[in-house]
Order: sequence, then C-alpha cells, then structure tokens
Amino acid sequence: MPITVVGSIAYDTVKTPFGERERMLGGAAVHFALAASFFDEVRVVGPVGEDFRNEELEVLNRRGIDVSDIEHVAGGRTFFWHGEYGWDLNTRETHDTQLGVFEGFAPKLSDRSRSSDVLFLANIQPDLQRDVRAQLPHARFAALDSMNLWIEIARDSLVAAISSVDCVILNDAELRELTGKPNLVAAAREILTWAPGANGPGEPAGGPRVVVAKQGEYGAALITPESFFALPAYPLETVIDPTGAGDSFAGGLVGYIAAHPHEQLGESLLRRAMAHATVLASFNVEEFGTDRVARLRGAEIVARIRELHSMTQFSGAPLKLRG
Amino acid sequence: MPITVVGSIAYDTVKTPFGERERMLGGAAVHFALAASFFDEVRVVGPVGEDFRNEELEVLNRRGIDVSDIEHVAGGRTFFWHGEYGWDLNTRETHDTQLGVFEGFAPKLSDRSRSSDVLFLANIQPDLQRDVRAQLPHARFAALDSMNLWIEIARDSLVAAISSVDCVILNDAELRELTGKPNLVAAAREILTWAPGANGPGEPAGGPRVVVAKQGEYGAALITPESFFALPAYPLETVIDPTGAGDSFAGGLVGYIAAHPHEQLGESLLRRAMAHATVLASFNVEEFGTDRVARLRGAEIVARIRELHSMTQFSGAPLKLRG
Repeated sequence: MPITVVGSIAYDTVKTPFGERERMLGGAAVHFALAASFFDEVRVVGPVGEDFRNEELEVLNRRGIDVSDIEHVAGGRTFFWHGEYGWDLNTRETHDTQLGVFEGFAPKLSDRSRSSDVLFLANIQPDLQRDVRAQLPHARFAALDSMNLWIEIARDSLVAAISSVDCVILNDAELRELTGKPNLVAAAREILTWAPGANGPGEPAGGPRVVVAKQGEYGAALITPESFFALPAYPLETVIDPTGAGDSFAGGLVGYIAAHPHEQLGESLLRRAMAHATVLASFNVEEFGTDRVARLRGAEIVARIRELHSMTQFSGAPLKLRG
Repeated sequence: MPITVVGSIAYDTVKTPFGERERMLGGAAVHFALAASFFDEVRVVGPVGEDFRNEELEVLNRRGIDVSDIEHVAGGRTFFWHGEYGWDLNTRETHDTQLGVFEGFAPKLSDRSRSSDVLFLANIQPDLQRDVRAQLPHARFAALDSMNLWIEIARDSLVAAISSVDCVILNDAELRELTGKPNLVAAAREILTWAPGANGPGEPAGGPRVVVAKQGEYGAALITPESFFALPAYPLETVIDPTGAGDSFAGGLVGYIAAHPHEQLGESLLRRAMAHATVLASFNVEEFGTDRVARLRGAEIVARIRELHSMTQFSGAPLKLRG
C-alpha cells in the first residue's frame, strides 16, 4: 500500500566524535522515506527553499520516492539543524535551528498523496499533523512521531493528534514525559486508552492500538493492549552518526506494515515490522546523514534480519527448580 | 555443582517513591544466594556483626543456603547502606555507607566452601576477590561483579581479578568506564582479550570468555568472542525497590550454569542462563529487599520464563524488497 509521509526535509550540520559534516541532506521525512522505500511506494510531503539542490532530490528519486508533493517555496530557505553529539553519542546539543520555509508551512497534498492507504506523520507541529491526518480520513494505517518540545508547548494538540492515529512511535523518555508516568509499560498502557472525543454512538472508540517505545542504543519495545515485545538494537562496534535513526526506524516499521496489505495488524506482523525497523535504523547510523541507507541493498537488510533473529533466540527444556 | 559466593551481607535502609524501609536484610551475597538457591547448593562467605539477627539467617536457611561460612565478628557491626531512589528509579543517592565488619575483612573459607565447582565474586574490593579466587583454583566456572568505585580507585587489581575469571557481569556504564570505550560491543570485546599475565608456555591464555552487560530497565546483553545476545528486562508495571536486582540477576545466571554440570558453556546454555537471570531480577524488584524472592516458588520462575520467551520471538518469511 502506498505511504504518504509529511515532515521535515532539511540540511543538517552534524558533529560527532568521528567527524563533522556541513549541510548534509537530512530531515525526518527524508530518513523515513529512504527506509520505507525498500518496502513500498513513498510519497513525501514537505517544504524546501530555493537553496535546495537537485542532487538532494536525486537521492530520493534514485530510491523511487515520489517527490512531486515537495513544495519549493520561492525565496525561502530550507529547514536547517546544527547539532553535536557527546562522546558516547547518547547526548546531543543543538547549536542552531532555522525553521526557514517551515514557518507558515501549510501542507498541500495532491490527490495522489491523499489517496495513500498508509500515513506517517513525522515530528512536526501537532496542529499540522492533525491537518494532514484529516486529509487522509480513510488511511488504513496511520502512525505518528513527536518530540519533547511539542509535549511541553502543545500538549493538548499532540494528545488530539495521537488519538487520531493507530500507532505512536516515541522515545521512552517522551512517553514518560507525555503521560507523567515513570514506568514505561504504565505510560504506554495509558496512551492506549486515549480515544478521539467525537465518536458517535455505535462508532468504534478508535485511538492508538500500538505504542512503540524507541530506546536508542538499547533497542525498542512494542506495547499493545494485550502484549509486550522488545528487541535490542542491532549491535554495532562503530556508530558514526545517530541523526535520523528514529526516522529510519519508523520507515522500516511503517514500510513493512504497508507492504503487507492482506495481513491483519496483529502481533506477528508488528513484530516482524519491529525487526525491520531495527535493522533499517542500524544501517542509518553507520555513516553520516543518508549516505548508508541511500546505497543500501535489499539483500543486506535480509541478511541483518537473519542475524538479529539469531541474536534474540533462546530455548531449552524447563529445569527442575529447588523450591 | 555447588556454588560459593563471597560478598556483602548487609542491613539496608531504602527509600523509593513507594515507601521506606529500615534495616532490611540485604547485601550482594544475600541477593545472589537467594536467587541461585533455586538452582543449586549455595555457600555464603562474608562477615556480619553482633547486631545481625538470627531471623535474617533463617531467611537464608529456609532456602537451603549453607551459612556456616558466614563469619560472626565479635563486637562488630554489620555492613550498612542507606540509599534513596529518584522518581523513575533510574537514579539513586547514597546517604550513608558504614563498612563495619568489612573493614579489615579477610575471607576465611572452609574446606567445604573451597571445594565448590562454581564461584561468584560479588562486588567487593578486588584484592579480596583475587584472594578468594586463589583459594578455589580448580573451580570450573568463576564469575565476578564490581562497581565504579573500584574502577576508579583500584583499577589494576580489578583488571587482574577480571583476568582470573570466566565471566564478567557489569553494568554497561561500568564496562564503558573500565575500558574507556564508549561503544558497548567494543568495550566487551576488549575485556575478552584480557588474560592473566603468568601463563607458562603451552598453557591456555585464560581470561574471561563471557561478558554480561546489565542495562537496568532495558535488560541485559551477553557478549562472547563469537556472538552477541540480548534480552529485555521482564516488563513490570510496578517496580518497588531495585536494590539487589543486579545480584539476583547474577544469582539466576550463575545458578543456572551451575545446575548444568554436564553441558558445555556454549551459546545455548548461556542464553537460557540469561533468561533465568532476567526473571530472577524481575521478581527481586517487585517488593522491598528480599521479601519477594524469599517466598518465590520454582513454578513462578518457570511461568515467567515462558512469558519472557513469548515476548522476544519473531519470525516470518523474508520479504521481496525493493532495491
């Protein structure tokens, strides 16, 4: 099923312990789209400025991504982020954020983007997420990412946006902050009770059915009303640049679900989607920016899925215990 | 195979967001022994003071633990720790530590404790760990825990202690601090190259073959020279008191290995041991101090192992990927 993603298309200047790069192609919608493009058709919605180069569009084109709803704003500047990671890559400092064309951005979706069966609302202002969600009322699967900023300054709108999707993908610290519950399982279970307020009598309650907690280097957990599942991150001896890992993760997850239109959104599908998400994120962080995923091959994904599977299995006959 | 553990036997005063308890039975050797007692015979070596009550010994006796090498120091005071956990239980502050009988402690092992096939060196001064290791030169499996304090003030002795055991069980932050490597896999792989200095020609290099990285609420990872394995923590909606979780984990791990004397220390055994470690730790944190594990039943462990297994499995046919 085709996927529409709305979110940032950016230039990133990034410093990590392994080097520094200036004005690389980045942004949540870009990282998501590259990852999801291995699974299904992806349509990107978002604004860029006059400084945006054709060679960046080519990176998306080469992966077969539909860029016709990327809005080129005359006289505008592309969203810019400048950040630096600490020695263990677990902390990062933002030196500069320039919204550029994102100031005053109003998503305009073509009929084609509105016809997608799957929707991903990358991390943007939650009012915009709700606006886009309303333009795809019949999408069969919608997922959302966000960040601490919106929890702090636009919580009500974010809660409404969350209540309108099937799946929430957040960092575990964000899940805690959003719910005020320090326990991850309790926080996720609370979000799973959120439902849109305006249901008519007899209508299903709606609201999210799946919460995914991203845990950085520790992996990710999947929580539904009935179940819990967790995977470690794919272990890497060298991580070069974590920027976009969460968006690549989301691209693997949502892309895998989109590629299975005839399978129920049950535990088996969700778990395989989590594995593909984990693997896409692992490739993303191996090099700066989009470098690694842009030249990734399907066979590499399959091989790493197999490895991840072998790293998470245990079995054996139960033991006679003393007591 | 019988297990000897050397480490602290303590009184703990603990405050968590869920309450406060004064002078509970605690200490690394105690939490380890209770967990390991489900798998094999455990012999505890460590000092207590005149203030140590018979009812605490009874907690160990009821689990069939051999307490005859617990040294009662006339005129001494039992090791005491007073700590407080933050709202999400991930941070803790030590208000008071009184070494008491641990000052000047010299481990005296009976022939019986020296005859064990399995040895666990809980977190104590590394010189003491080496002293005890030297008293069980023929133990078939020896494992060790430590802490940031010893990395900072007794690193050389700790490295020597680590080089003398088969298995190192540390928090991931400690593995990073110990090796100066921010990447967990790289840190573990470095430790796996450490070997005792004094090998004669033709002698095996020795040194640790297994590194276990405890990751708190995120679970734990197992790293050997050839492999990587990780498990999430068993998910709990309510965690009451994390004190002793790492020692219960070690008790489950080492105990499970001890209970399989005829099986090679290979991937299959280690992974099942990791699962049992994870489950023992999960019970430990459900109540204050030793309360939960002291009345735990084998059948509860088996049931939770089954649940953990179902929470970590995924499978499915490979997908035809685009690219």
